[in-house]
Amino acid sequence: MSRSIRIAIDAMGGDLGPQVAIPGAAMALERRPDLKFVLTGDEAKIAPLLDAHPALKAASELRHTAVAVAMDARPSQALRQGRYHSSMWMALEAVKQGDADIALSAGNTGALMAMAKFCLRTMGGVDRPAIAGLWPTMRGESVVLDIGASIGADAAHLVDLAIMGAAMARIVLDIEKPTVGLLNVGVEEVKGLEVVKEAGRILRESDFPHLSYHGFVEGDDIGKGTVDVVVTEGFTGNIALKAAEGTARQFAAHLRAAMSSSWLTRLGYLLARSAFDALRERMDPRRANGGVFLGLEGIVIKSHGGTDALGFASAIELGYDMARFDLMSNIRALVLGRDGPLATAGQA
Amino acid sequence: MSRSIRIAIDAMGGDLGPQVAIPGAAMALERRPDLKFVLTGDEAKIAPLLDAHPALKAASELRHTAVAVAMDARPSQALRQGRYHSSMWMALEAVKQGDADIALSAGNTGALMAMAKFCLRTMGGVDRPAIAGLWPTMRGESVVLDIGASIGADAAHLVDLAIMGAAMARIVLDIEKPTVGLLNVGVEEVKGLEVVKEAGRILRESDFPHLSYHGFVEGDDIGKGTVDVVVTEGFTGNIALKAAEGTARQFAAHLRAAMSSSWLTRLGYLLARSAFDALRERMDPRRANGGVFLGLEGIVIKSHGGTDALGFASAIELGYDMARFDLMSNIRALVLGRDGPLATAGQA
Repeated sequence: MSRSIRIAIDAMGGDLGPQVAIPGAAMALERRPDLKFVLTGDEAKIAPLLDAHPALKAASELRHTAVAVAMDARPSQALRQGRYHSSMWMALEAVKQGDADIALSAGNTGALMAMAKFCLRTMGGVDRPAIAGLWPTMRGESVVLDIGASIGADAAHLVDLAIMGAAMARIVLDIEKPTVGLLNVGVEEVKGLEVVKEAGRILRESDFPHLSYHGFVEGDDIGKGTVDVVVTEGFTGNIALKAAEGTARQFAAHLRAAMSSSWLTRLGYLLARSAFDALRERMDPRRANGGVFLGLEGIVIKSHGGTDALGFASAIELGYDMARFDLMSNIRALVLGRDGPLATAGQA
Repeated sequence: MSRSIRIAIDAMGGDLGPQVAIPGAAMALERRPDLKFVLTGDEAKIAPLLDAHPALKAASELRHTAVAVAMDARPSQALRQGRYHSSMWMALEAVKQGDADIALSAGNTGALMAMAKFCLRTMGGVDRPAIAGLWPTMRGESVVLDIGASIGADAAHLVDLAIMGAAMARIVLDIEKPTVGLLNVGVEEVKGLEVVKEAGRILRESDFPHLSYHGFVEGDDIGKGTVDVVVTEGFTGNIALKAAEGTARQFAAHLRAAMSSSWLTRLGYLLARSAFDALRERMDPRRANGGVFLGLEGIVIKSHGGTDALGFASAIELGYDMARFDLMSNIRALVLGRDGPLATAGQA
């Protein structure tokens, strides 16, 4: 039997803290019985919730702290006040100490990244960490990164993103050699930012064994699923992701309004209920919940702060897959192997 | 009676050239009978189509040229081959000579911008031209710029965009003092690019009389309609726009698939038909067809290359409104008035 996958959860993160984290963990445990948890946070708030989930309680170690990082804290402020003894820090520390494979928090993204860099350190060979997300597409899902960690990027950073994104796609999408595209304003070679062109040149010429470089892709290629991995710097990636989420919500709201506009449309809605349920599930943002911090000496998952237990469970399961298929070793081999004899060390 | 609005149309631009441009112009003329046209392009192809639309023929002057700019031409190539005698150039030239108020083309965006800069010149006081689009939102429509002309921007350019976008919003959205937001990765003051922060500082401190500076907005605020004018540089703007368009198409495709999945859902679809038609119209990209080139000594409208006659007519009507409400003088007054006594010259 394989060993357990251990997730350290900052139970105080997110808008509702343990009220979402604990039922979410219980839900994930039902589906992945080999999970173990390190839960960090306020015992007085967590313990009563744990009592309602005996299986989770049995699979968890609770590490108490009364300090929690506020959702609106600035990263520097969070570091000053929350280092060493906040629930967020203690979840990261559990990974650093080898007590957990993955750290997960629904807390403040900037604070989590600042603490993760300080606690876990950036991986050797990687310039700056990034956040990767799973984007639902017409073909399934694609890995999109960076969705908010790095503002601006040089060509070398975009190449790092391509390599780390491909390593994640191998695991999450189960593709041996994922296709990678660089987000640009046009598909012709002449267009776009100099750094994007330079990164394209490097990716084409380097011919990395673990990814297939597709070329430039445009904004609408993300949803089409043209490539498995979409690479851009964090400013554009974050805005593209949120613009798309906004459009999906807008579409859903218009659809709701249209379907309740008359008794005939309401009857039609009832008859076609199953179709709407299928659509809702397909476009459900909770299914793709969880940004993955890449490029650190440890994997950190950021759940959406406003998610519910189901979304939190999805983020846990994302972390589960990462740990199970050893994302860390994969990335390390790929990143370190770029310039030396290790170049094929990460191959399956 | 007010004078006519005169539109110069590059009839050869777009995937289908005059086959879309001529019926589109005829459609626009039906709705706006005070329109006059200068049509540029191949007489042998345009004249037979005009014969089918006698009212349009009577309202049009046809300027023949056999030269057309290819849809895939590079800007430099298009300039070399198409300057002075292409249909695209001749439409711009008509504006320069005062024979038309607006130039419109469904041709290659890069070529059109390069030629427009060369023919019409950049407006004094404006650094670089931009392309503005109308984005359908939960509240109606917002002006979003730049959606693809400028790659990268300094703070002064973002401020130019804010001023030009507000001038356009005043006309298109009929709002005396439009709200303006700067696109950023977070609403807190601490986040994001230095240039975006600097532009925010200038907009807040300058207190321009024709716009109300809202602060930073995020990607999902665009679809919410949080502000009337969303400002960002062209790389991010183009990618956000296309990512959102992609999501809308994805949603529509999933909805179609779901509604035809069983006889029950198909029956439901038939009963709720009116709702789907309303939704389709609401999310119809043709309604918002037309990018507006701002910051030149003349207004140029870029229609989507793949649009149909209805979409082309929408682009013409957008140009009609711009000319009717004298966007040029508005922008000129606002841009030039920034530092001097003209600061209130553009007020209604």
